[in-house]
Amino acid sequence: MLEELKKKVCEANLKLVEYKLVLFTWGNVSAIDRESGMVVIKPSGVDYSSMTPDDMVVMSLNGEKIEGRLNPSSDTPTHLELYRSFPNIGGIAHTHSTFAVAFAQAAEDILPYGTTHADFAYGSIPCTRDLTKAEIDSDYELNTGKVIAECFRNRDIDCDAVPAVLVHSHGPFTWGKDADAAAKNSAVLEEVAKMAYLSKVLGAKPANKNIQKKHYFRKHGANAYYGQTNVKD
Amino acid sequence: MLEELKKKVCEANLKLVEYKLVLFTWGNVSAIDRESGMVVIKPSGVDYSSMTPDDMVVMSLNGEKIEGRLNPSSDTPTHLELYRSFPNIGGIAHTHSTFAVAFAQAAEDILPYGTTHADFAYGSIPCTRDLTKAEIDSDYELNTGKVIAECFRNRDIDCDAVPAVLVHSHGPFTWGKDADAAAKNSAVLEEVAKMAYLSKVLGAKPANKNIQKKHYFRKHGANAYYGQTNVKD
Amino acid sequence: MLEELKKKVCEANLKLVEYKLVLFTWGNVSAIDRESGMVVIKPSGVDYSSMTPDDMVVMSLNGEKIEGRLNPSSDTPTHLELYRSFPNIGGIAHTHSTFAVAFAQAAEDILPYGTTHADFAYGSIPCTRDLTKAEIDSDYELNTGKVIAECFRNRDIDCDAVPAVLVHSHGPFTWGKDADAAAKNSAVLEEVAKMAYLSKVLGAKPANKNIQKKHYFRKHGANAYYGQTNVKD
Amino acid sequence: MLEELKKKVCEANLKLVEYKLVLFTWGNVSAIDRESGMVVIKPSGVDYSSMTPDDMVVMSLNGEKIEGRLNPSSDTPTHLELYRSFPNIGGIAHTHSTFAVAFAQAAEDILPYGTTHADFAYGSIPCTRDLTKAEIDSDYELNTGKVIAECFRNRDIDCDAVPAVLVHSHGPFTWGKDADAAAKNSAVLEEVAKMAYLSKVLGAKPANKNIQKKHYFRKHGANAYYGQTNVKD
Repeated sequence: MLEELKKKVCEANLKLVEYKLVLFTWGNVSAIDRESGMVVIKPSGVDYSSMTPDDMVVMSLNGEKIEGRLNPSSDTPTHLELYRSFPNIGGIAHTHSTFAVAFAQAAEDILPYGTTHADFAYGSIPCTRDLTKAEIDSDYELNTGKVIAECFRNRDIDCDAVPAVLVHSHGPFTWGKDADAAAKNSAVLEEVAKMAYLSKVLGAKPANKNIQKKHYFRKHGANAYYGQTNVKD
Repeated sequence: MLEELKKKVCEANLKLVEYKLVLFTWGNVSAIDRESGMVVIKPSGVDYSSMTPDDMVVMSLNGEKIEGRLNPSSDTPTHLELYRSFPNIGGIAHTHSTFAVAFAQAAEDILPYGTTHADFAYGSIPCTRDLTKAEIDSDYELNTGKVIAECFRNRDIDCDAVPAVLVHSHGPFTWGKDADAAAKNSAVLEEVAKMAYLSKVLGAKPANKNIQKKHYFRKHGANAYYGQTNVKD
Repeated sequence: MLEELKKKVCEANLKLVEYKLVLFTWGNVSAIDRESGMVVIKPSGVDYSSMTPDDMVVMSLNGEKIEGRLNPSSDTPTHLELYRSFPNIGGIAHTHSTFAVAFAQAAEDILPYGTTHADFAYGSIPCTRDLTKAEIDSDYELNTGKVIAECFRNRDIDCDAVPAVLVHSHGPFTWGKDADAAAKNSAVLEEVAKMAYLSKVLGAKPANKNIQKKHYFRKHGANAYYGQTNVKD
Repeated sequence: MLEELKKKVCEANLKLVEYKLVLFTWGNVSAIDRESGMVVIKPSGVDYSSMTPDDMVVMSLNGEKIEGRLNPSSDTPTHLELYRSFPNIGGIAHTHSTFAVAFAQAAEDILPYGTTHADFAYGSIPCTRDLTKAEIDSDYELNTGKVIAECFRNRDIDCDAVPAVLVHSHGPFTWGKDADAAAKNSAVLEEVAKMAYLSKVLGAKPANKNIQKKHYFRKHGANAYYGQTNVKD
């Protein structure tokens, strides 16, 4: 089932390697078929070099394994919680990309220092709170998803305008309309994080709100005028 | 029309990828045919991997689209303003290269710390002032060009001796005698910015004026003696 | 003798090049055949580009050369001491990878700032004390191994849970169940060191113990649930 | 004449590209034939991609052009002065490699923070004093060589034990027994400079003298025991 989606999810996983965002078996990408409520995700701990669409695992939105020879990514419950909490998103990517992880380990938001950031997200990329001992000891991966959703809810952040989060002490999750967009957003986030690191060392302050708005809405939403026809990236 | 120039502009855009200065569809290069006053520029949001000379867009210097199936780069009005303000230049490149962006985000000039910089530019690479709300809300890209020209005028910087600028909170524009030179200057600027970042962290001060002059004029102008015959780079 | 092991050790040495951890002839990997007590190790100062399994050198655990045309790595006595001190390990790698060396040169432990570290090691990657003049003047490489073992003993660190060490002013040694695992651990250590460097500059503190434990035991030991079946990485 | 040497010098120049130490036409390598006193050097401002042994220029040790269609590197007088001042060296390389330049721009020696440095050089890599206006205005490149020689003489540094220098505000020169060794030393210097930069940011202090001595003499001189037979690298 969902053969087309498996192919796309497999390809998006391989993009993480092409974008140099992952070492060995690290990282994972998934996508959801909103009609059937089925999620396709990378298997756990499998080499990218030998991965095929057939290795992808199909899960129901409430965590039942529906199809697949292999165990799904150990981060699967995080993905599922994000699909439940953020109803518009179609794909999710998780990496341990270097600069994004550095901000997560420093428990710091990535501030919107300039237009590269504003082309990608409207406002800071938030870093979640630390998980409690109870949240870690039981259903850790599910609770990771819940803490992300709580962070966006409590800080009133729109997950469509900010397609990325940093999990405290851990690393980034990104999302988008599909698996490919989620993987691309992981690459953009890493570049934005690197620029933010360097800018912070140089003593930068966030860009003013006007230019943030301008750049975000130049590329996103009804009045976007970047790119060709209606294909907004 | 301008088929030869389209080819050169397309090639110069692809150089940005080869020089590792751009992610996805970021960045753009243009060139002007000074005789006809026509500008050839990259289309907006198109993949580099499939780009051909045919995709290039021809614009008049006052902003009319003359030829091309696709929308021109959203930064086109900035390019046109620079061609109007800097009458000697023949090509312009814009990237979001990492270290140059870091200085732009920190709203800091790149100081002339040494001879690599002086081989490229005579004096600091300036960072413009921030745009006002009014300049952002209406004709943003045109005003970006105007603020660059104002910066060079107010600070009495010669655009032939300093072939690059950092736009506040945004990133670099570079120029040169043609599209290829503009793209090359983007690569040199990024390397110079990286060296400046590291030098600043180590506590460097700008090089003395004598050695700056020596290196600049060793490579540029009537008394240059770097390279072969009269081909100065 | 040990032709199969020579092949694996040769391959693991070439992995160091693939992982971009070594320049020229730097670095070395070995493996032990615990049954016979024989150690296979890279020859000293030989180009990776021309290296073959036949070039590997066989040593007894007490330092006698048993087979091989070439001199063994000058670091051989360090490897042998580690095999004697850490009875569970099957392979050892030594590199001068950039960020790990920076911590070694700063005589600083790599602190467990996040889950990438905790997936790899449980607790800090320790940096040894400096060797004394006497330890350097005579049997330097053997004493390097002894100082590593002393560090793990004195600080009560389990070498199975922390598969890496930084030698003061020098660089990292990593180990694992075989040569391939040891080489992989060198790559992971370098990435973890880079993340730690950036995190420290950003002002990070170590991750809390609960999440460190969670991530370590998610991937290691009897209750691991990362990956497929019993193949734990 | 010197066809074999031209081939080796051309190859060593191309190594600078392979080692990722140069952009565009930057950098140059030369070698000397001590018997005839002839120096072979890269031409000025020529693309590496099209360079052949035939393009190399032959100079006498006192600066006369003996053979070659092209102008020699503009840094030729610096090379010649170094061959006159350091009678044991056989090859010289000059690059603007990023981290070495950062130290040169910061006018800072590269301190011997650890064994990677000590494997390469015995003691600090010195940074020269700034050139005076008179030294810059007339015979600049010759005076660059003289200031290097003065630095080694005044600080009593042995050019055989320290095969590299940083020219103030400029960048590194390295040397060795031939062109290939000089180019290799440029690559090692850049790696050592990067490690020193990171170590300094982490707060490192130089390694103790005993371990510096040990590592230097493990690889160099009569008692070296690194590598195979008498081939010391």
